This record gives sequence, C-alpha cells and structure tokens, in this order.
Amino acid sequence: VQYPLEVRYDYRALDVGLFAQPVAGGLDRWQPLLPPLLPGLSLGEGGTPLVRCPQLCAWAGLDNLMVKDESRNPTWSHKDRLNVCTVSAAVAAGALGVAISSSGNHGASAAAYASRAGLPTVVLCDEGTGLAAQQMMQAYGAAVVAMPREARWPLLEQLTSLPGWYLLGNTAATHTGHPFGPEGYKTIAYELFQQLGGRAPAAVAVPVSYAELLFGIWKGFEELRLLGAIEAVPMLVSAEPAACAPHAQAWEEGTPTASLPYGRTIARAIGSATSGYRGQHALRASGGIAWRVRDEDMLAAQEAMSADGLWAEVSSCASLAVLRDMGRSGFAFHGPVVAISTSSGLKDIDAGKPAVPRIHSRDWSEFATVLRERYELPVHS
Amino acid sequence: VQYPLEVRYDYRALDVGLFAQPVAGGLDRWQPLLPPLLPGLSLGEGGTPLVRCPQLCAWAGLDNLMVKDESRNPTWSHKDRLNVCTVSAAVAAGALGVAISSSGNHGASAAAYASRAGLPTVVLCDEGTGLAAQQMMQAYGAAVVAMPREARWPLLEQLTSLPGWYLLGNTAATHTGHPFGPEGYKTIAYELFQQLGGRAPAAVAVPVSYAELLFGIWKGFEELRLLGAIEAVPMLVSAEPAACAPHAQAWEEGTPTASLPYGRTIARAIGSATSGYRGQHALRASGGIAWRVRDEDMLAAQEAMSADGLWAEVSSCASLAVLRDMGRSGFAFHGPVVAISTSSGLKDIDAGKPAVPRIHSRDWSEFATVLRERYELPVHS
Repeated sequence: VQYPLEVRYDYRALDVGLFAQPVAGGLDRWQPLLPPLLPGLSLGEGGTPLVRCPQLCAWAGLDNLMVKDESRNPTWSHKDRLNVCTVSAAVAAGALGVAISSSGNHGASAAAYASRAGLPTVVLCDEGTGLAAQQMMQAYGAAVVAMPREARWPLLEQLTSLPGWYLLGNTAATHTGHPFGPEGYKTIAYELFQQLGGRAPAAVAVPVSYAELLFGIWKGFEELRLLGAIEAVPMLVSAEPAACAPHAQAWEEGTPTASLPYGRTIARAIGSATSGYRGQHALRASGGIAWRVRDEDMLAAQEAMSADGLWAEVSSCASLAVLRDMGRSGFAFHGPVVAISTSSGLKDIDAGKPAVPRIHSRDWSEFATVLRERYELPVHS
Repeated sequence: VQYPLEVRYDYRALDVGLFAQPVAGGLDRWQPLLPPLLPGLSLGEGGTPLVRCPQLCAWAGLDNLMVKDESRNPTWSHKDRLNVCTVSAAVAAGALGVAISSSGNHGASAAAYASRAGLPTVVLCDEGTGLAAQQMMQAYGAAVVAMPREARWPLLEQLTSLPGWYLLGNTAATHTGHPFGPEGYKTIAYELFQQLGGRAPAAVAVPVSYAELLFGIWKGFEELRLLGAIEAVPMLVSAEPAACAPHAQAWEEGTPTASLPYGRTIARAIGSATSGYRGQHALRASGGIAWRVRDEDMLAAQEAMSADGLWAEVSSCASLAVLRDMGRSGFAFHGPVVAISTSSGLKDIDAGKPAVPRIHSRDWSEFATVLRERYELPVHS
C-alpha cells in the first residue's frame, strides 16, 4: 500500500504581506508557500477570474453563487497549476522524460510544461479519450498511446521503473498522486480569499475524480486559517458522477477510500473508479459533504452557465449541479458560494454532434424559415 | 460607400494614474477610455499574459520576442475585448437581438456576451466553418446558419434592416466594422505598456483579416503617445495569409483598400478577400509594414510555439511566422518584439486528423514498440 506524502512549511517565517499582492497569473508569485519552481517555467497559470453569473444563480436558486473559471489557464484547465509544480520537481530530480496516465487535461498540461522544460512526455490514455484531447496532447508533442483502461497502470509503472522516466501521476491502487500537485491547486484558495476581499466563501464545490483538486483547495484555506487570515475553512463539497462515485461511497461508509467497478459517464474528465485518502480527509476536516451528480444534471448546468457567457467542459459543471441539488435539499449557505469550473467546453469538441443547418443561396425566405422554424426566432419571410 | 467612424475622448480630462493600476482582467477598469460598458457584462476579459518563449525565440532568430496570449480570454480569443464593447452598444441602442457574419471566434464571443445580456444572436457562417466553431457558437445559444460565403452579407443586411436586429459587424463592401470594436482591442496596447514596465515594444505583429485588431492596438499606443506616456508608437506589422492578402496589396500599391478573389488558406480565422481603411491607416501611421505568410510557415510557427507550452490556433501563428521572415530579410528590432496570439489551438479541432496509436493489452513489448517506432523514444522492449 502506498500513502500520500504531505508538504509542510515553516509558517512562522512567512511574510503575510504575500496575500496583499494583486490577483494575477504566474504561480511563482506564491513561491514562499510552494515547492521550488523551475525559473522561467511559468506560463502565467492561475490568476483566473471569479465571475458573477446572474442567470446561473437563478437556475441554481442561490443568490450569491460565483464561478471560478479555470479555463483561463495556459492549457485551459486547472491542471496547469499542478504541472508547473510537478514538472519543476521532475527537472530537479534529473528526469529525462515524464509519464502520466490521463484522458486529456492532465496529459495536455503535463506535455506543455514538460516540453517547455525540454523533456519528452508519454501519455497513456484510455480508448474513450475524445477527439479534442487526442489532438491537444499531440499538439504539445506528447507521445500518446491509447489502450484499455486497466492496462494503463501496469504499463505506466513499468515505464517509470526505467532510468530517467519520471512519474508525474500515480500507479498505486488507491490514488496518491504527486505530492506537489495539490500544492499548485491550493493557490486557488489564496486567490478566492483575495477576490472575496480578504475572506473565505461559505462553501466551495469541486468536480472530483481523485479529488486532488479538492484537497489542494482545502489545504490552501487551512493554511490561511493557520496564518490567522480566516477564522474557519469553508465547507468543501465533492461533485462526482453518479455513475461511479467512490468518494461518496467512502464518505457515507466512513472508510478512507473506496474502489468500485468503473461506470460510464459523459463527464470523461472526472470518471474514476477509485478515490483517494486526501479527498476524504479534506471533506471531513472541512465539515464538507460528498455528492453524486447525474449526467443530465451536468448538462443542464452547462446550459445554464453558457447563458451567462461561460461555456465549460461538462465535467466542470458537476459543481454547479451539486449546488442546485443541495439548495433543493434544504442546505442554506451563509455567504458567497463558489463553484470551481475546471475547463473549457472546447475540450468536449467531438465528431458526431449535429452540424449547423445549411442554406444554399442568398434567398431571404430560406434563411428566414430556418431562423423561424429551427431557432424559433420571430423573423418573417 | 461606407466609411468607418472614429471615437474620440477628451484626453485632457483623463487621470493618467489609470495606467498605474495592476494588469488584470475586466475591461471596465479602462472605462474612462472606452465607450459606456453595460454594468455586469464583463466576463473578466483582457489582462492576458505576456509570455517569454525561449525555444520560439531561437526558432525565429530573435532574442527578445514575447507572445501576448489572447487565448486566456472568456471565449478563448481576442474577440471578447471587442464584444464587451459592441454588445454594450447593442443593449444601449435597445436591440432585441444581434447579428454577425463570422466563421467562429467572433460569432462565439458575440453569442456569449449577447446571451449574458439577455439577447439572442444570429451568426451567418460560411460552409467551411470548422467543427469546433460550429459546436462552440451553438453552445452559447446562437442561431447559426451555414451558407455560401457571398450570401452572408446580403442576408445579414436584410436581417439587420428589420426592427430590433442590431448589426454587430459589417455589411459594407469595404470593411468598416463596428466603431466600438477597436476600442476594446486598444486595451491590448495599454496592457503591453504596463507589462513592459511603462514603455512600448519596438514592434507588434498582428494576424489580420479586416485588421480591426491591428488598428485597435495602434490606436491604444497612439493614445499613450498623446498622453505623453510613450514617445513613439511601435511599428505595427500585419500578418496575412499569402493565399489572399488584400492589406499587403493595398499597402504596396498605396491604395486605401483592396479587394481580391478569395483564396483558400488553412488560416480560416483570417482568410479575407477585402481589407479596410483602418488597418491601412494604422500601418502607415506607425511606419509599419504589411507581410504575406505562407500556410506552411504558420504551421511551423505553431509547432515552435507549442514547444514552449503555448498551443495557438494556426491563424494566430501568422504573427510569429512574419517576425521570423522579417529577421531573415534583414530587419533589426531595437527592443522587445511582441507577437499577438489571438486564439487557442482548440479552435482548430476537427475530425479527419490522425488518431493516436492504439495498443490492445498490457503487453510491455507492444507499448515499447510504439514508443520507439512511432515516437522515436529510447525505450527498449
């Protein structure tokens, strides 16, 4: 059995003026609270906006819901916060190449940072990996190989047992992840503290697969509490596909982790059969809760958020769907509530979706008919 | 003939402390130098990073080239700066809906902002519009209709002659665009001034179709010059597909605009058969230059930039290819040079590109063979 490693800092030595700097990108600005970052590796990750979404609030039945839009990162997902830390570690360790099992966001981001650092990247992806993810990972020069889900871990383990091949992720049966990954994620908590004017939100909902992101956000708030900047850590909520929800099962049964048969979900980026220790710890320590989300509710949340001008990957929208569910179940939030939106809707681009209607000439009546009948717009022929 | 409108401000009344604020998103921070923005419409557009790219510099043969990464905007392109201004104007004018001809970025961004403002959007796109663009525009709720290129303008004109349908773009034979569009773009110049520590770069290369972006960036620097913040406007360089380059033709022939037969290019976002007055004006007023870029050089530039961790839409890479060409032609730049990268590589996602190689089991030798033979990695069976 492998257990996760935790990174500790000498918090007494910290200048808390660090939190008074303006919100901006570049995780190196948080260096006193991060593992050593490779100079020049940053792509300006982080510093993502916290966006007010009035139509989404109405949909969710919450009056102070805001979206932390992580699609504004260099490779358009939260994974960039992780990889600036883990690729720095790989370079420091003398790696000759990095390897990861990923269905998209993680692999693409790892390849971007590794390439910037001059290292090749191998990504082991499953056969259901989408068109956008495949093209994106290859664009950054990764050596991508598709294979059956269960083949990924033994092959990843074998590859990273060769000299020079650095493991960016996990090969353990119970997910542990790279210890520096959540260190990058915790900067989301620092930014939320700044963006809310020096306070913590009432709750933060986070899409989870292995829940490393959720743990990182919890840790950032916990550090702010230790430093005396906030009184209490906000309630953390894990948003997990109902098709396969090991975190929710572990949380309900009081076990440290759970493993289940993999269940198919449209939320490819967060489909996982195994939970991890860190996510459970963060849920319990924050007085949080684990929640299951149906695919159709994620799609409804995606549409509601798009109406406010933010188009997210469907997995990202699990956090919104959970918050609406919770409100309907009688939860009352005393203060602002934040939904983490992890990535862009462009990541879901795939062949096989319906194409736009087509007309064949400059004839007005043909055009007006499409606008009226297909789109229900009041345009007369 | 239609001519563009220009927006003027009372610069004497301006507090130049405006430029001392930190670089961040939300164009409303520049309100004293912008047309009235609709309160709450901002999605945190702008504030995009200026990224150092060592491998790209080596490729281009320039030692101080930086990339302004506009893919960090709300809909992952520079068009968001335009639309926060033009949709504000539409709402102020009492529009009941907005309409635009677009092959992707503009239409998606317009739909995002219009939807946020509660207005429907009609997008007239050409038949070559890609998979990502189609799905993205529809995701924001736009009524998208594909049609032959030449049908778009007469139908757009007819639609926007109906009461309440607001024209976000252009229907004139010589492109004029919405007068508020370049007002949004000019904030790129303000940010570059800030990001370079209170000075202008030596040159800025800009991918152009109608060159509204190029004009906007020029105008921002010209305002900084009028305000006494910089001594001279940097050299502006237009990067245009060689397949059809009306700006380059007008520049070479000394005419205000040019129109050519449309020429097919892989750079879909900047393929244009017509130039505009504003772009020519900016080129000449800045001592700039118009340059043609071959498709294969854009692809080479895209690969070079990806190596530094930035994957851009192929059209975005025209600016990089131009700078390399200019260096090889003997141009010397005295100071930092900025390439504007307008959008994300995800916008080019399309079916028909090669899929990743696939293996069928956890057999090490099959995996190692793919890594060695397909990707040329030193992994032995």
